[in-house]
Amino acid sequence: MSSTSAYVPGLEGVVAAQTRMSKVDGLAGELVIGGFKLEAIADKASFEEMVYLLWHDRLPKASELADFKASLAELRALPQATMDLLKAVSSKQLDMMDALRVAAGTLGLNAPKDGADEWNAKRLLAAFPTIVAAAWRLRNGQEPIAPDAKLGHAANYLYMIEGKAPSEARARGLETYLNTVIDHGLNASTFTARVITSTASDFVSAIVGAIGALKGPLHGGAPGPALDMVVEIGEVGRAGEGLKKKLAAGERLMGFGHRVYKVRDPRADVLAKAAHEFYEADGDMKLYNLVQDVEKVAIRVLEEHKPGRNLQTNVEFYTALLLHGLGFPTDVFTPTFAVGRVGGWLAHCFEQREAGRIIRPQSEYVGVDDRAYVEVGKR
Amino acid sequence: MSSTSAYVPGLEGVVAAQTRMSKVDGLAGELVIGGFKLEAIADKASFEEMVYLLWHDRLPKASELADFKASLAELRALPQATMDLLKAVSSKQLDMMDALRVAAGTLGLNAPKDGADEWNAKRLLAAFPTIVAAAWRLRNGQEPIAPDAKLGHAANYLYMIEGKAPSEARARGLETYLNTVIDHGLNASTFTARVITSTASDFVSAIVGAIGALKGPLHGGAPGPALDMVVEIGEVGRAGEGLKKKLAAGERLMGFGHRVYKVRDPRADVLAKAAHEFYEADGDMKLYNLVQDVEKVAIRVLEEHKPGRNLQTNVEFYTALLLHGLGFPTDVFTPTFAVGRVGGWLAHCFEQREAGRIIRPQSEYVGVDDRAYVEVGKR
Repeated sequence: MSSTSAYVPGLEGVVAAQTRMSKVDGLAGELVIGGFKLEAIADKASFEEMVYLLWHDRLPKASELADFKASLAELRALPQATMDLLKAVSSKQLDMMDALRVAAGTLGLNAPKDGADEWNAKRLLAAFPTIVAAAWRLRNGQEPIAPDAKLGHAANYLYMIEGKAPSEARARGLETYLNTVIDHGLNASTFTARVITSTASDFVSAIVGAIGALKGPLHGGAPGPALDMVVEIGEVGRAGEGLKKKLAAGERLMGFGHRVYKVRDPRADVLAKAAHEFYEADGDMKLYNLVQDVEKVAIRVLEEHKPGRNLQTNVEFYTALLLHGLGFPTDVFTPTFAVGRVGGWLAHCFEQREAGRIIRPQSEYVGVDDRAYVEVGKR
Repeated sequence: MSSTSAYVPGLEGVVAAQTRMSKVDGLAGELVIGGFKLEAIADKASFEEMVYLLWHDRLPKASELADFKASLAELRALPQATMDLLKAVSSKQLDMMDALRVAAGTLGLNAPKDGADEWNAKRLLAAFPTIVAAAWRLRNGQEPIAPDAKLGHAANYLYMIEGKAPSEARARGLETYLNTVIDHGLNASTFTARVITSTASDFVSAIVGAIGALKGPLHGGAPGPALDMVVEIGEVGRAGEGLKKKLAAGERLMGFGHRVYKVRDPRADVLAKAAHEFYEADGDMKLYNLVQDVEKVAIRVLEEHKPGRNLQTNVEFYTALLLHGLGFPTDVFTPTFAVGRVGGWLAHCFEQREAGRIIRPQSEYVGVDDRAYVEVGKR
């Protein structure tokens, strides 16, 4: 046995993986994904391109991208057993993340023996939107909509949720969102995927574990409350008073401050710009403008309340504006985050497969070791 | 952000959790579970008692044990949606661990909002044997057998596999096995369960992740090959020659040597004794004696081949003998390990819930950070 270090609560600060997927620089407010600064690629690449970049460490040529898109489009429709399962459980007012987890768990059952990793990766990536859209529609008493192979990954997801193909601006908005959240260092769900893969288990097992971890409220990524706050305020004239009241009552302002970023979250601007473009194309800037104004007031009020803490807008604030504007209900925000993040999870699965080493830390025993067994009748 | 230490491949030697569940002392060859030395409790407690011990840090009084057993027995039968799913996928020559994973994943859908952890824990523990037995019988074209609430957890599992209630000696043999493998430090599957729980996610998500990790061949716990080796040798007179040939060809002897134990795995003796008792009660000691003899020869041959390495019998060697003797087919060995280990996984879930802190290590970025985006047509 190797020597053992002291207990590290939460493994904080321990480096558990080397990765070329993303770099998070919290002090500089910089996020690099697949070798690109976020703002240099998020609103340019299609989601399929972005995934290809992470899986292959380079952007695809035109023919490679066409092949990749076609192979994904073929794998969008759900197996009958998966759809039957979703129908059987949809009456339960099922949590959307549970729906995604149970349905995704069935996707590897038809995997070929050779090339199972590649096949499972494409299958999971392709089918995530189909699962979320089907689960959402079933929960609302609507029939699921079959995927349309002529649409790209993002546009088809909007189509399966809403029943109509989105405008180019709206599809681009979602694409930019999915690219923006595709990877972010070694968060708990990504780490889970790597631990499971490290035992040489299959990618479906790894992704199912990651979904379970993402579901937990401590994971982060709960943009619903940020939107609720803005809607509750309603008009910008009331923002200062409303926000001050919240802070005085000891509440947090949702959508501000971040564990890692000590300056403005670089994802906030990318998402704000993406939202601006389709809100403008749609011709209704009311909510967009309210959000912008509330943000300014919130930052000022936070600085007054906690001088020097520099609490800035985080990714959740503009995620809420963007996904709401695209027509996603709040319950589908976290599953939609997963639709993007699964591209990164799978990239980490491939990378961990290459690393080929089991991730297995130690525990420290804090119990007794000399109990004596007494028959049940004599206790 | 806290300071970050250097990359620790595989998190080897890093202490990621404090636990009162089990202590593994590899140098002394000692395993403590729930405060008891393994050999002081494994063949005395019922499996339900052993689980209660880990979940509550003490053995139950008679009335508590009766209540616990009754509440588990009530939760054994599978929901219709779960059984339908198993039936839908059973034609695929499904991997038994995949079957366990997909079916277990559906078990939380009826959980009450209050006390969901307790309910999910009992539900998972109670239903694991039902899932494995049903999946196994469906795969073989047989109808699943409904659980019998009059039988204990271990005896009922054998009943659902074989279709007849086991002898007391055989039920005791399985019970001792399940107790022996219920927990073993912070292996990769247990760690997975803790990481997922640490995000404040639910226990079903955590256990589904753990099943996925256990499935991986690097996790360990593959007793099938150890039995194959003994059967291949066939008679003790051929053991020395056969084993030497394997070693000369660079093969490992399955069932010997352990990453942690540098002396005899304390579980081996407990399982050997448990197997001896029901093999003797059944009146056929032929395989038991062969295994004992092959073990002696193997240890001698290993010492000649690698002097001073002290490669000793590990848990897999006698697991194979025991589970085979109880009538379990090789494909059901690892799922049966899970039927025991889930008691420990869940104990760690409760313990992690108490700890209340997210497990989130860091990654080290090893990619570039200055790529420039080029339109797809110009690549």
